Amino acid sequence: MKFVVIGGDAAGMSAASRAKRNKSDLEVTVLEQTADVSYSACGMPYNIADPNRAIEDLVVREAQVFREKQGIDLRTGHRVEAIDRAARVVTGHDNQGNAFELKYDKLLIATGGSPIIPDRPGFGLPGVLALKNLNDGRVMKEYIQIRAVKKAVIIGMGYIALEMAEALRARDIEVHMVKPRPILLPWMNRELASMIEEELQANGVQLHLGQDVTSIEKVDDRLKVICADMKIECQLVLVAIGVKPNSEIAEDAGLELGPKKAIAVDRAMHTSDQDVFAAGDCADAYHVVTGQKTWIPLALRANRAGWAVADNVIGKTKELPGVAGTAVFKVFYLEVARTGLTSDEASAAGFDPAEVVITGQTKAHAHPGSSIMRVQMVGDRKSGRLLGVQMVAREGAAHRINAPAVALHSQLTVEAYSQTDLAYAPPFGPVWDPTLTAANQLLKKLR
Amino acid sequence: MKFVVIGGDAAGMSAASRAKRNKSDLEVTVLEQTADVSYSACGMPYNIADPNRAIEDLVVREAQVFREKQGIDLRTGHRVEAIDRAARVVTGHDNQGNAFELKYDKLLIATGGSPIIPDRPGFGLPGVLALKNLNDGRVMKEYIQIRAVKKAVIIGMGYIALEMAEALRARDIEVHMVKPRPILLPWMNRELASMIEEELQANGVQLHLGQDVTSIEKVDDRLKVICADMKIECQLVLVAIGVKPNSEIAEDAGLELGPKKAIAVDRAMHTSDQDVFAAGDCADAYHVVTGQKTWIPLALRANRAGWAVADNVIGKTKELPGVAGTAVFKVFYLEVARTGLTSDEASAAGFDPAEVVITGQTKAHAHPGSSIMRVQMVGDRKSGRLLGVQMVAREGAAHRINAPAVALHSQLTVEAYSQTDLAYAPPFGPVWDPTLTAANQLLKKLR
Repeated sequence: MKFVVIGGDAAGMSAASRAKRNKSDLEVTVLEQTADVSYSACGMPYNIADPNRAIEDLVVREAQVFREKQGIDLRTGHRVEAIDRAARVVTGHDNQGNAFELKYDKLLIATGGSPIIPDRPGFGLPGVLALKNLNDGRVMKEYIQIRAVKKAVIIGMGYIALEMAEALRARDIEVHMVKPRPILLPWMNRELASMIEEELQANGVQLHLGQDVTSIEKVDDRLKVICADMKIECQLVLVAIGVKPNSEIAEDAGLELGPKKAIAVDRAMHTSDQDVFAAGDCADAYHVVTGQKTWIPLALRANRAGWAVADNVIGKTKELPGVAGTAVFKVFYLEVARTGLTSDEASAAGFDPAEVVITGQTKAHAHPGSSIMRVQMVGDRKSGRLLGVQMVAREGAAHRINAPAVALHSQLTVEAYSQTDLAYAPPFGPVWDPTLTAANQLLKKLR
Repeated sequence: MKFVVIGGDAAGMSAASRAKRNKSDLEVTVLEQTADVSYSACGMPYNIADPNRAIEDLVVREAQVFREKQGIDLRTGHRVEAIDRAARVVTGHDNQGNAFELKYDKLLIATGGSPIIPDRPGFGLPGVLALKNLNDGRVMKEYIQIRAVKKAVIIGMGYIALEMAEALRARDIEVHMVKPRPILLPWMNRELASMIEEELQANGVQLHLGQDVTSIEKVDDRLKVICADMKIECQLVLVAIGVKPNSEIAEDAGLELGPKKAIAVDRAMHTSDQDVFAAGDCADAYHVVTGQKTWIPLALRANRAGWAVADNVIGKTKELPGVAGTAVFKVFYLEVARTGLTSDEASAAGFDPAEVVITGQTKAHAHPGSSIMRVQMVGDRKSGRLLGVQMVAREGAAHRINAPAVALHSQLTVEAYSQTDLAYAPPFGPVWDPTLTAANQLLKKLR
């Protein structure tokens, strides 16, 4: 049986490796358009922050290991352009311009996502960069070094933009961030978002909210970012306004799409064609809180979905419950975490949400080095269910979010969560964990 | 209605405050034998570590606040010696030697626990100290300063002993730890315990395992700790071999006792007498994994049980699900955490346990500053349920334990836990959280 995988990053390589390992007579071919496979894309900002680290540090497993040790027919520089589902053939071109076609019995589309680049003047200029694959990181790192970049503009303020702001500041680059909307992290509770805004300012990042970039111009050896009310000259522009799923070849092949045009998959990762799977940032997922489809492209889901595809390809039925939307990122010295729904998302999904924000401490009463932790919690007035949590703190938010995440998978009520036996010792938090205090407060609003 | 509380620490003051706040015409009297109420007992090791901090820093709320602002009749220096359940009267003596007696309608026994002191020669000598209440901390701190202590012996190696080893080393005191049993932390998986043993040695703590202390002698102004095979001279001995519930007056009053002679309570904290409650370190609890009674004296349970008593006293029915045995402590630069059952405890409770230990990383692939994290996980072969988790790491264990703790409350299977959507970003861990890797490995043993 021939198993063909389009895309050699997290989902694709996880699926290829596991399928081959568990069924050695399976013919597994991976077609990857770039030269790189199996690397930590999420690690790029931290690598770019350090001029002494090679970008290749991020490679988890070399291509030859997949080829020689694992017996996977891994073809880099191979871009798939079309899927003929009737003939069960994929076609494309390699980076020498040669056409190829390949038969499959089972196909996995793991084409990932791409940065959204506005169709406006100047976004294609040299020095206007985006960050998705390892080569983008390589290019950016070289550009910063060769051009001795001293000033950069980041367009967008999502988590990649924020991580990159920290990375560029670590290299002593002046950083300006611009976005058209007037508020930072609109999905976040304002009391929590204000902590992030202060942290960015304290670390020398200049925020320009409500500034839509209409064009970028080249002026001598510099770039000029032009907004309605202001212009910023710089050497480097990072475009980080968002990501979209790479679902064009799936759409062209007549496969069903889900939210945000991600490829629609069932719990076993089948697309609308039972012999074609999709996994990773190009595919949608069920949300464990709403039971509805969502598109939240994150690394753990990509790896897990890759494994599930492998199991289903070799005939072990594997269904995934879905995602809770758990995410964490670091902004300078702050940990920012969320799981589940915001109040707006909860209302949209048909819940009747109530919300609290509490300000707690990261260590026990009188313990040295304590700082504040803000926790936002959302519950449903009708069912009493816990629906979502957000957290910001200098420490202890990144892993603390996992307790409410498990509670969301278990569909616990806020009351049941408030009774959970969580860890306490003075160096790590107050007797009542801040998430328990939030639950206790939220209960008063739910009754 | 008269509500009398015996004991003014976590459980007692939580109950008194909440009951009075929610029913202002309740007559609430708290009888506390020491001079101190409402302080962070768990914070004592960290306070003792710092000669510049006053022990009074640990007081959360002053006695006069309870008296004047909250309207609680708080009587310190009042030791209750007997409960006459037929007459609904408690009797005792104050610290002036005056007898008192007090009528109650509802009574809460919140007498806490006491350090176990072996009945052997020399354990009553000056300089042989234990650590339970705030005055013990005060005495120890003064003793260290006045005697300019340079060398100490800690008898016992439980978490209080380990926290105190760190505290005394912080004050540059030579620390020897002795215990009769040949292994450190016998409840802990050996691969995890070895990390703690190395950490203690790396920080200059001298461990003497398998050494039973037969007596302590006074030699000039020093103390000599005498074991079968060795003698250690020092200036200070800390006895920290364990804690027992203060249940004597309850037993004398004919109330039922549970495990370890803790006072038996139902889910609403009633003792075997419906008008007498017990809460905190003197009372037992249901274990959410086994459904059986257990005695795990910890601060969060004490506070929570105090609140539940208050609710039940004023007529709001409140039942607590129980404890998961979640605990965390710090040993120098290590975080040590557990929740649920060990394999031995699981077998004793009728499960068919399988166990794995994995060695993971605290940060993502190639992220700077990563160190190892060991995770032990226990599951039940019959039901597939998750039964317990232990963790040791330099960072990220303290809060990470809460995710499996919530899973235990939800009675999740290992399979269901393995599918939970946990947070990932490179500074905080690998894509697959180490607890997920442990679950994935454990699943292979459960099938």
